[in-house]
Amino acid sequence: MARVAAGPEIERLIQLLARLPGLGPRSARRAALALVKKKEQLLGPLAAALAETRDTILTCEVCGNIDTASPCTLCRDPARDRSMICVVEEVGDLWALERAGVINGLYHVLGGTLSPLDGVGPDDLSIAKLIERARGGQVTEVLLALNATVEGQSTAHYLMDRLAGSNVTVSRLAYGVPIGGELDYLDEGTLAAAVKARKAM
Amino acid sequence: MARVAAGPEIERLIQLLARLPGLGPRSARRAALALVKKKEQLLGPLAAALAETRDTILTCEVCGNIDTASPCTLCRDPARDRSMICVVEEVGDLWALERAGVINGLYHVLGGTLSPLDGVGPDDLSIAKLIERARGGQVTEVLLALNATVEGQSTAHYLMDRLAGSNVTVSRLAYGVPIGGELDYLDEGTLAAAVKARKAM
Repeated sequence: MARVAAGPEIERLIQLLARLPGLGPRSARRAALALVKKKEQLLGPLAAALAETRDTILTCEVCGNIDTASPCTLCRDPARDRSMICVVEEVGDLWALERAGVINGLYHVLGGTLSPLDGVGPDDLSIAKLIERARGGQVTEVLLALNATVEGQSTAHYLMDRLAGSNVTVSRLAYGVPIGGELDYLDEGTLAAAVKARKAM
Repeated sequence: MARVAAGPEIERLIQLLARLPGLGPRSARRAALALVKKKEQLLGPLAAALAETRDTILTCEVCGNIDTASPCTLCRDPARDRSMICVVEEVGDLWALERAGVINGLYHVLGGTLSPLDGVGPDDLSIAKLIERARGGQVTEVLLALNATVEGQSTAHYLMDRLAGSNVTVSRLAYGVPIGGELDYLDEGTLAAAVKARKAM
């Protein structure tokens, strides 16, 4: 066991920081030092922001988004198209689509993908609620914006089956060459999908 | 400007997290999501740890280490060899040496390196205090454990000149091949230093 140069408070802070995605034990140590060095500009405000988030954050009971109100800002927005639900795996995906500003409908966060091997079945995801929303009458399109991974796609197929009986159009994102992508660096699967879905110019 | 999917509290938290070293805007977003997802296990404890650090942390008035007491735990430790001072650039370097458990003396944190181009002169670093400590009578060795960079080494030379009049031995860390290092991947400077300082077996 290495000797400890800093007090137990700092060691505890480092251990907690190391549990954030993207930070390991070494970078957590550097982050802790940066925090202590910028006590007024960074440590204080971050402590306050975390405390405020802890006290105010909620999961939207309608769509599963994270906000300080439930239903969330997006679900309450009267300007949004209530005939379309965009289904995503995680809240991070919802945020990414919102940053792109391409979805004017509502969202639905599944909370993951089906994974029988890991014991994640339909009841572990927010699927029943999605079916209920899709059958609510207002909805005409469900866009399955799931990751282009095996898990994402098998979940999408499961959802398509479940939604088959209802009166909604089920769509998925297009596959192809990403904008700015160089063919030389793309995998065969992407290239095959891009060729298969080619468009007349 | 992209539309904001989360409330202003979350956006503020993301902005603050993005200012930590090792985290960019994208990973800060992921970190914020991880915090919100693990509200009880991570967000709460981290908020508390940051608040406690903010309220208790001090810079040691003797050596410049960071601790909840001043003089710090290391400076107060009666088991430490008071005849040796190990000089480091930053608190992170002190922590690294303590983790290795190889220094049984005291430390002195300079707070950086001399850099005339950036306007960092001797008065901007904790140099006067170091000279005063070195001349205190108890000290017989000053180990300059500065980085093996141009800035670190020119600072080391400056300190050697300043300490020349006092009755202390000034030493520096050895240069050579790092443990586990493969020659093929090492730079010419390191290899040259390792050859120059070769030892009889």
